[in-house]
Amino acid sequence: LIEAAVEVFAARGYDSVSLREIAGLVGISHTGLRHHFESKEELLLEVLAFWDAHSVDFRQITDVSGIEWLRATVDVVAKFARKPLLVRLFVVLSGEATAPGHPAHHYFVDRYRRSRQLAIDHLTAAKLEGKLRSDVNITEAVAVIYAVLDGLRVQWLLDPQHVNIVELYRGFLNKFLDTVYG
Amino acid sequence: LIEAAVEVFAARGYDSVSLREIAGLVGISHTGLRHHFESKEELLLEVLAFWDAHSVDFRQITDVSGIEWLRATVDVVAKFARKPLLVRLFVVLSGEATAPGHPAHHYFVDRYRRSRQLAIDHLTAAKLEGKLRSDVNITEAVAVIYAVLDGLRVQWLLDPQHVNIVELYRGFLNKFLDTVYG
Repeated sequence: LIEAAVEVFAARGYDSVSLREIAGLVGISHTGLRHHFESKEELLLEVLAFWDAHSVDFRQITDVSGIEWLRATVDVVAKFARKPLLVRLFVVLSGEATAPGHPAHHYFVDRYRRSRQLAIDHLTAAKLEGKLRSDVNITEAVAVIYAVLDGLRVQWLLDPQHVNIVELYRGFLNKFLDTVYG
Repeated sequence: LIEAAVEVFAARGYDSVSLREIAGLVGISHTGLRHHFESKEELLLEVLAFWDAHSVDFRQITDVSGIEWLRATVDVVAKFARKPLLVRLFVVLSGEATAPGHPAHHYFVDRYRRSRQLAIDHLTAAKLEGKLRSDVNITEAVAVIYAVLDGLRVQWLLDPQHVNIVELYRGFLNKFLDTVYG
């Protein structure tokens, strides 16, 4: 049920569909769906929880830290490049959720803050170990790294034949580590 | 009418609203709206044309070229940072439009290809003038520059107090021109 809802939200966004339509697309009755979820908002929160559990995520890199954590993010990007549907879910919902009134607005604001903090912690450790230049502004660097990733996601989903997200991200990171940060 | 539709699409996306609802939100009758636009798709195309005409865009930099064109993109970012509604329209619609069946899918695929080509032309000129390192892969560089911009847009719209899109973009570009490309 949740997986079917993921597909519906990824293809059409959250705002676009009613619970009744989702029930129809999933192939159960509206009453049956309401038995599981009181509201579309409740279903959205379940879909986001599913996405959190199944998406490949930088938080899952726990075996390395500091600069090795940053290098390992390339492998994570390679993994999620094999799950375009979940990536699209993220792109569509995070775009919609930039509107302050959207029910997932606070989820995404929090998520981005936590993601940035995780990277800030690893880059700070890397700096202390002398693996990053001492004049690197870590907050700025982290915002740019996530921006590259989010922006490449959109270009890749729109034009997968012309945009190789994994190689572009790897190339960006290597250049940054070799010259700007290193 | 179009400006009101811009607000509706920016807040709720394209898929989420019917022509009837838009008519209600804009304060005219459904029949009145249908008099101007036969379908929601037609209205979307008008909204995209409006956005093209009113958004601040790198194509508007025509007084400089090559590396100066790239430097001038910072001023363009500063200008569109004063139009968050139009930026949100772009983020919401481009996110939705990553789905191949979306009526604006081809518009955004084409738009990104043309934007990348414009930047490729200027960076190629800069390289010929010796303003960029001869080993810079221009196609990669351009994909990364647009990715930074698109990704910063999302972070900035979600969290404008913590994310200064203009300074982050300027900082990124300066570092790239000083070290990676220059």
